[in-house]
Amino acid sequence: MANEKFLDAITSRDVDFAQWYTDVVRKAKLCEYTSIKGCMVYMPAGYAIWENIQKNLDARFKATGVKNVYMPMLIPESLLNKEKDHVNGFAPEVAWVTMGGANPLEEKLCIRPTSETLFCEHFAKNLNSYRDLPMVYNQWCSVLRWEKTTRPFLRSKEFLWQEGHTIHETSEEAKDRTKMMLDIYHDFVENDLAIPVIWGQKTESEKFAGAEATYTIEALMHDGKALQSATSHYFGDGFSKAFDVKFIDKNNKYVNPFQTSWGLSTRIIGAIIMVHGDDDGLVLPPHIAPIKSMIIPIGHNKPEILEVANKIYDELKKQGMVVDIDLSDKTPGYKFSNQEVQGIPTRIEIGPRDLENGVVTIVRRDNREKISISLEDVTTKLPEILKQMQKDMYQKAKEHLESHIYEAHNMDELINTFNEKSGFVKAMWCGDEACEDEIKAKTGGATSRCIPFNEEGISEKCVCCGKDAKHLVYFGKAY
Amino acid sequence: MANEKFLDAITSRDVDFAQWYTDVVRKAKLCEYTSIKGCMVYMPAGYAIWENIQKNLDARFKATGVKNVYMPMLIPESLLNKEKDHVNGFAPEVAWVTMGGANPLEEKLCIRPTSETLFCEHFAKNLNSYRDLPMVYNQWCSVLRWEKTTRPFLRSKEFLWQEGHTIHETSEEAKDRTKMMLDIYHDFVENDLAIPVIWGQKTESEKFAGAEATYTIEALMHDGKALQSATSHYFGDGFSKAFDVKFIDKNNKYVNPFQTSWGLSTRIIGAIIMVHGDDDGLVLPPHIAPIKSMIIPIGHNKPEILEVANKIYDELKKQGMVVDIDLSDKTPGYKFSNQEVQGIPTRIEIGPRDLENGVVTIVRRDNREKISISLEDVTTKLPEILKQMQKDMYQKAKEHLESHIYEAHNMDELINTFNEKSGFVKAMWCGDEACEDEIKAKTGGATSRCIPFNEEGISEKCVCCGKDAKHLVYFGKAY
Repeated sequence: MANEKFLDAITSRDVDFAQWYTDVVRKAKLCEYTSIKGCMVYMPAGYAIWENIQKNLDARFKATGVKNVYMPMLIPESLLNKEKDHVNGFAPEVAWVTMGGANPLEEKLCIRPTSETLFCEHFAKNLNSYRDLPMVYNQWCSVLRWEKTTRPFLRSKEFLWQEGHTIHETSEEAKDRTKMMLDIYHDFVENDLAIPVIWGQKTESEKFAGAEATYTIEALMHDGKALQSATSHYFGDGFSKAFDVKFIDKNNKYVNPFQTSWGLSTRIIGAIIMVHGDDDGLVLPPHIAPIKSMIIPIGHNKPEILEVANKIYDELKKQGMVVDIDLSDKTPGYKFSNQEVQGIPTRIEIGPRDLENGVVTIVRRDNREKISISLEDVTTKLPEILKQMQKDMYQKAKEHLESHIYEAHNMDELINTFNEKSGFVKAMWCGDEACEDEIKAKTGGATSRCIPFNEEGISEKCVCCGKDAKHLVYFGKAY
Repeated sequence: MANEKFLDAITSRDVDFAQWYTDVVRKAKLCEYTSIKGCMVYMPAGYAIWENIQKNLDARFKATGVKNVYMPMLIPESLLNKEKDHVNGFAPEVAWVTMGGANPLEEKLCIRPTSETLFCEHFAKNLNSYRDLPMVYNQWCSVLRWEKTTRPFLRSKEFLWQEGHTIHETSEEAKDRTKMMLDIYHDFVENDLAIPVIWGQKTESEKFAGAEATYTIEALMHDGKALQSATSHYFGDGFSKAFDVKFIDKNNKYVNPFQTSWGLSTRIIGAIIMVHGDDDGLVLPPHIAPIKSMIIPIGHNKPEILEVANKIYDELKKQGMVVDIDLSDKTPGYKFSNQEVQGIPTRIEIGPRDLENGVVTIVRRDNREKISISLEDVTTKLPEILKQMQKDMYQKAKEHLESHIYEAHNMDELINTFNEKSGFVKAMWCGDEACEDEIKAKTGGATSRCIPFNEEGISEKCVCCGKDAKHLVYFGKAY
């Protein structure tokens, strides 16, 4: 035991947030880069978080009638080119397959950056009558965008996501589906990831390539930067016209259906890290943590301690809770650090002194609270502690969000706020893209994050040009 | 209702098996081709089968300590080239990415045909000491091989699969893992897919590119052709040497770990179709069927029938059974055909006459048995019927397998058997690849499927060259 050392220190979050993030990702063993710049390995601890996200969201989707499918990863150039805005948005950042085996291909194929075009092709082939509608599909897959600057989870060339694609008889129904899916993301991110968000509509300049309207949930990271956490798009019938998707309606006429798409990606793991993590590493909300508790016998070689540790392990497992037990020959201090860096929500310390008193100590990862629990109460109290922790983590993040929302009534205020503070700044906007550009240029990169659903009017005039304001906008510097 | 017609007929299985297969795939809406030749859309009914396979296998894997990860889809040419046999096996059939956005890449990247090379790169970076072993990883993903001749599920350019990759301290442990995973496949395919298999080791010429030994389970389709259903490979330390994967062992020396990989793909859906399907379409084994029963109200507009149908639906759902109810305005005959073509294991017919007697009729998809059940017994009897159906389907397939295994003691017998019959032919073999080649040439394509684990000796001499025999081999014509 003499030559054991504690885990290497993590850079302090307040000293260098970017380095802190990289340290946490590496030390919690969430992912690592490969020899292809910007392509990541999702390691077991990182992938297990994604599996939990998938399980949770997939059940929510299916409860609303979503059916999963799988589309090819390759898109012919001619298919990508069918919708003008869409191809302009994506063509510059796709990877092209030009050879199959030793032979050059007749037409180059891109690896999907997103799959609207493939779904449209499928819809066009399979849609006949209004009786076939709605078609409400989703796929879990990876997509690839040839990004130059990459960061683990936040921006990588290849990333994992789900993309939902639906077509509907009426625009109202499609709009309802767009909102319904945003609701699901909102509820999931707030309740299961303990991440409070603001939500609303993207401005024209920030919406998805080819969409009529894009809705978004936007979270605030600990450093005050925004992260777009999920989006839901209403397409109108633009894509279905471009791809000749049509059906015979109730009046026996050929018409185009109305369409949506919506997605959430492994970026959200970056949000979990940056909202909840601290100087000791990752802090996972209990709802989404792959392991809920680490049992740590102290003085593990004593048979009576091991016996109690194993008994608690078995009992918690029996009630369906995923827990782990650290039976390594490391020091307690090392074991504690190791559990903490991985963000496991609680640990159960079982020491000789505790045992004499018939108790164990449960330590919460988020606030380090130590809770002494009698042995027979562990199975009932641990779920309660986790439930409270989930609530407290949300509350803490919500206070952070609310205390980092500012208002600006003119450009000086806006610029000064972004110079002096970090967070969202609410301001009125005339609806003109030129003002968004000017704001971005003068604030060192703040963009419109969304027009919130519950719009307040904080002034009559655009913060930038002074003309009549159309909307309240949340501005922020984003990942 | 007058202009409704029954579903188009399916080509008879005995008239044209290949066309029958294509018809079933299309009419059960399992998958369809896209504008890229040989790339498929997995449609909801097909993907739901894959989801059930994933769920079942994933739980079995995890129970043995497997951890899921995700590796990039791209492999640099230089990485693929590191293991000689492996690159020779795969390079001719990979797709190459040569451009990122508008720019040519410095090194071309292939889309993974399989991921041994990526796992080795990861292991090399992360393995330090024997304490890190074993590493037991799996990923669910798609792979791509530039096949020329493709058939739905059986051979497509891109397909879905899982690939497990593990490294171990000793060769014994790696060999045990290889066998353990084959055991899991064997158990899963026999018990959950109701497909009996023969199992054993591949000959040198049929083993995986780069493996020391490949183990396989081989199923027999209804037309008497074999289908390799899953494989498990033992690599020795060949890959770990080629990729410089090493660790400090208990004696403080650097050594290379021993490695395995194992996989099962969406090909298995082809096996389900071709083992169990009949002239009315798909027949799904209850264990893997996404929907276990279709409730069909006959004379659905009568409120008293609808009420009973909905009550049964609710009760079955409440006990966790996934069932569906057909409330369309189609004729009963159409509804029956539709349930049958999709392979839904049972239907529950609720008609006016039955209802007067307080009963419903459950019809089994596999043998058309009609079972009259009193209303209050549906929730208890349906699970029993499904259980019996699962057993009977296995038994029927097993009888088919066993009645299509032949023996040959010389080349004439072997050639005649393959001319006159279809199935597996057992024969002795000297171990020489030249004899395998000759057998293939003279039988119109029969290959060695495996050397079975329980080898009998049916003769002393090789069926082909007459030299001393080393092994019993199952020969067959394969998909």
